[in-house]
Amino acid sequence: MLATVLHGPGDVRYEDVAEPTILHPTDAIIKLSATCICGSDLWPYRGASPVTAPQHMGHEYCGVVVEVGSAVKTVKPGQFVVGSFATSDNTCPHCQHGFHSSCEQREFMSGAQASYARVPLADGTLVATAEMPADDLIPSLLAASDVLGTGWYAADAARVQKGMTVAVVGDGAVGLMGVLAAKQMGAERIIAMSRHKSRQELALEYGATDIVTERGDAGVAGIKALTGNIGADAVLECVGTQESMLQAIHAARPGAMIGYVGVPHGVQLDGQQLFFSQTGMMGGPAPVRRFLPHLMDLVLTRQINPGKVFDLELPIADVAEGYRAMDERRAIKTLLRV
Amino acid sequence: MLATVLHGPGDVRYEDVAEPTILHPTDAIIKLSATCICGSDLWPYRGASPVTAPQHMGHEYCGVVVEVGSAVKTVKPGQFVVGSFATSDNTCPHCQHGFHSSCEQREFMSGAQASYARVPLADGTLVATAEMPADDLIPSLLAASDVLGTGWYAADAARVQKGMTVAVVGDGAVGLMGVLAAKQMGAERIIAMSRHKSRQELALEYGATDIVTERGDAGVAGIKALTGNIGADAVLECVGTQESMLQAIHAARPGAMIGYVGVPHGVQLDGQQLFFSQTGMMGGPAPVRRFLPHLMDLVLTRQINPGKVFDLELPIADVAEGYRAMDERRAIKTLLRV
Repeated sequence: MLATVLHGPGDVRYEDVAEPTILHPTDAIIKLSATCICGSDLWPYRGASPVTAPQHMGHEYCGVVVEVGSAVKTVKPGQFVVGSFATSDNTCPHCQHGFHSSCEQREFMSGAQASYARVPLADGTLVATAEMPADDLIPSLLAASDVLGTGWYAADAARVQKGMTVAVVGDGAVGLMGVLAAKQMGAERIIAMSRHKSRQELALEYGATDIVTERGDAGVAGIKALTGNIGADAVLECVGTQESMLQAIHAARPGAMIGYVGVPHGVQLDGQQLFFSQTGMMGGPAPVRRFLPHLMDLVLTRQINPGKVFDLELPIADVAEGYRAMDERRAIKTLLRV
Repeated sequence: MLATVLHGPGDVRYEDVAEPTILHPTDAIIKLSATCICGSDLWPYRGASPVTAPQHMGHEYCGVVVEVGSAVKTVKPGQFVVGSFATSDNTCPHCQHGFHSSCEQREFMSGAQASYARVPLADGTLVATAEMPADDLIPSLLAASDVLGTGWYAADAARVQKGMTVAVVGDGAVGLMGVLAAKQMGAERIIAMSRHKSRQELALEYGATDIVTERGDAGVAGIKALTGNIGADAVLECVGTQESMLQAIHAARPGAMIGYVGVPHGVQLDGQQLFFSQTGMMGGPAPVRRFLPHLMDLVLTRQINPGKVFDLELPIADVAEGYRAMDERRAIKTLLRV
């Protein structure tokens, strides 16, 4: 079959690879309904993470089960399923505590920018719908696989509660999903930090009440000005740079939690500075599996429309253009039709 | 009057100073019932924090109000009071959120290793008892002023809940109070990390169920061995060094919170390492005022006996020996009779 392979920085190809097969009795093979490009795919694409060998790309997926291994009990061929970018057995102690992304058997998905993909630990990873979803819901169900679940985790880790003032650092797809999540959790005021008009508009549509366009110290001053110099009750850090992390810490009031989901690149935190800021930090790879049933229900009942975060849709054969568009920030997030 | 003055590393004197007076209408003057030496007093005593001018020492206190400023409304002369090492107005937004140690008007107390002390923001800082407490309760009420409140905050920040397995890093007075707090909050298993027999015994008396004597990687392995390789549900970091902080992070299971209350000295946290550990951090100077009414009630009804943490009692004239004993780890914590 044809699939997306990254050969080196900037060199992404849609080319022939072997079709996935059942390798372990706990695997499933799915036919993808759609797939997409993640902001984190840009790290190796930009050469910020090393590419030592051709890499099968893609870890966000939803689709129809076509085959299962002999040990798979809860999903079966013909079912529509969504899974997380981090596989999980859903039974180990970490899964039981709701931290599926640290599952004892965790693997990170790959190879999902293709027509078919192998999903390890199918029983613990995949959540099936009761019936085949309407076509127009596919983008939103695909979003649940990672970007929505990650934004949701940012709000969960920041302990967003009804009535709170929430600041969101980062206007990428994850930040926008963080705005959506904060709104769903009852935040009264949601301050999106964004310099891009199209992203500001989507943030407002998802529930942002205020926009701060400045960054760094000026951005923090903007948050303080909007909160009577108190700071936000919760902050969602959705970037992962030193600047964005400090911006999040300084925008938070004492006692606030910062949910950080942007994989930190070059971030060093000074212990004493963090101590006296009296802000809390909780982050990591999102335990999407914990949230999946709820998120899928919100999508299927049309209470949320996270799929709008895909502002570029291409046939998968044009995947290279999808990467370019995101790299050049012409697109927030690219959906690939398979 | 005579008071404790630090002139330089190792040079602590009990000498004549001016008596405290009302400087602001919100001040109160108290006659101390007892005072004590804090682990944090050892930083300047050891030269680890600079001493540029003679420094009036002491920030833990309880005693009887002898005079109040014209604006003080809720406490009056003759009342027995306990206050926090961090003063607070108890009305600003940070206080209302329970983070009194980040009060907009916060000052850090000083000069309490003496017979009399001035307490700023008396209304917001001091909590009075209904009647004069029994003499034998004075050490425990004094402990509530800082060391108990700080250990309690460590457990609160680590979100200790009923049934949890809690690890406590540090067997100083604060760590021992952390054990007591975790027990009060319903922890099922409390693992104290301690190499000193007398401290182990006190930890067990306060509710520890297990002792790990190793440090660093071996200490983490000890915690893992006791928790089926899962890690602790909550960790209290009560030291403040790079080694102790990493020990806390590595001893925690994914999803666990680390309540850190040892003022970090030379601590640098790698963002990506913290991210993939998926542990949360919450710390800072303890908002003791939030907990004071509850802690004082637990002491006055004799449900807890934090005063046992004072294993050396001296007349305040011998304060220099009190510092020496703690510096040389001959004493956990020194109570000074005034």
